[in-house]
Amino acid sequence: PPGRKVLIVYAHQEPKSLNGSLKRVAVEELSKQGCSVTVSDLYAMQFEPRATRNDIVGCLHNAEEFNYGVETWEAYKRGSLSSDLIEEQKKVQEADLLIFQFPLYWFSMPAIMKGWMDRVLVQGFAHEFPNCYDSGLLKNKLALFSFTTGGSREMYAKGGISGDIRYLLWPMQHGIMHFCGVKVLAPHICFAPEYVSEEKREEMLIAWAQRLKTLWKEEPINCSPEWYFK
Amino acid sequence: PPGRKVLIVYAHQEPKSLNGSLKRVAVEELSKQGCSVTVSDLYAMQFEPRATRNDIVGCLHNAEEFNYGVETWEAYKRGSLSSDLIEEQKKVQEADLLIFQFPLYWFSMPAIMKGWMDRVLVQGFAHEFPNCYDSGLLKNKLALFSFTTGGSREMYAKGGISGDIRYLLWPMQHGIMHFCGVKVLAPHICFAPEYVSEEKREEMLIAWAQRLKTLWKEEPINCSPEWYFK
Repeated sequence: PPGRKVLIVYAHQEPKSLNGSLKRVAVEELSKQGCSVTVSDLYAMQFEPRATRNDIVGCLHNAEEFNYGVETWEAYKRGSLSSDLIEEQKKVQEADLLIFQFPLYWFSMPAIMKGWMDRVLVQGFAHEFPNCYDSGLLKNKLALFSFTTGGSREMYAKGGISGDIRYLLWPMQHGIMHFCGVKVLAPHICFAPEYVSEEKREEMLIAWAQRLKTLWKEEPINCSPEWYFK
Repeated sequence: PPGRKVLIVYAHQEPKSLNGSLKRVAVEELSKQGCSVTVSDLYAMQFEPRATRNDIVGCLHNAEEFNYGVETWEAYKRGSLSSDLIEEQKKVQEADLLIFQFPLYWFSMPAIMKGWMDRVLVQGFAHEFPNCYDSGLLKNKLALFSFTTGGSREMYAKGGISGDIRYLLWPMQHGIMHFCGVKVLAPHICFAPEYVSEEKREEMLIAWAQRLKTLWKEEPINCSPEWYFK
């Protein structure tokens, strides 16, 4: 609806890919609804995935023994995180909905996107004990994982060789988003687009656009072990 | 035993950390056994985690629409992957055992190590359909995930707020290592070292050295959904 803010964190090298098209469809459909849409195009930004001392501007809290979690927490409080992180945190802060668009790499997100999680969601900003899970600091936001797979729907079925696709959603949806207090919408999965016809891929884009039309009426999943492993 | 080759893929920024000490203990103990030990110290190497066109030397198979999986597969066959990847693949090829040593970041490995998986384990080298899972191309090798956590053992218990720690091992152990045919030894987990005494941390190092003494007699886990989600 008008006024809602969406951040799309996008990780694909090729604009002509299905992931590129899914991202474009989301920008178009959500803009048409009157949402304000921001895209973090990680490869185009050459986003840094490595968690290092460079993420802290100026002196360290303890230069004798570098602890990334402690240093970024302290730097967040002093406002001395590196500018690329501050920039991403602003986008997250403003967003009502985070969409993660990526090809599944090794049962997870590509490293460049994992680096976004590792570096942007620092303690103090996204969580701060005991404010985690339902009381995480990003509560009142929604997240949606939208991705493509190499394997087929059958391989990712319960009893399939790769196991129920929900098994691999646990670390991303529960371990990251739920931990920060973000409510999770059902994932959007395009199975094995490389092995289907151009027509089928076109249908995948239409289905995504269609889902986005009523997205704001969806209820979040019940992000507990039962949803994943029942 | 003498002659066995071990590759330790290590991801921590600080040599004085517990992860740094766990890595050193493994090098010492395994060397003492007569093993030949190689370490890939990812932060020290400034290992590149991003999967990009730079991983292919020379011309692309299809420059019109960049497909990372296809391009690296083709480049592997022609011997035109970037030199850092060829180097890592040689180390993997020679190893009988791969040890991954890291702090758990967001229910998974740090992005720099995920990038190692994304970029090194290319099709043709580590798997090539239908050679995956039990017939993956890296069969006859062993892998062991050794990591530290922020959360306590209680949080990672079945019924705990973060769920059974085994839930998060699925993508790493089954989705990556088993997919490549590698047999998986039980993980080695040091829970919440930052919240225990120096003495307790010392005990963690001793326990790891102790386990390594009889490591070669261990049987791999049964890497199926039952082990993870039973």
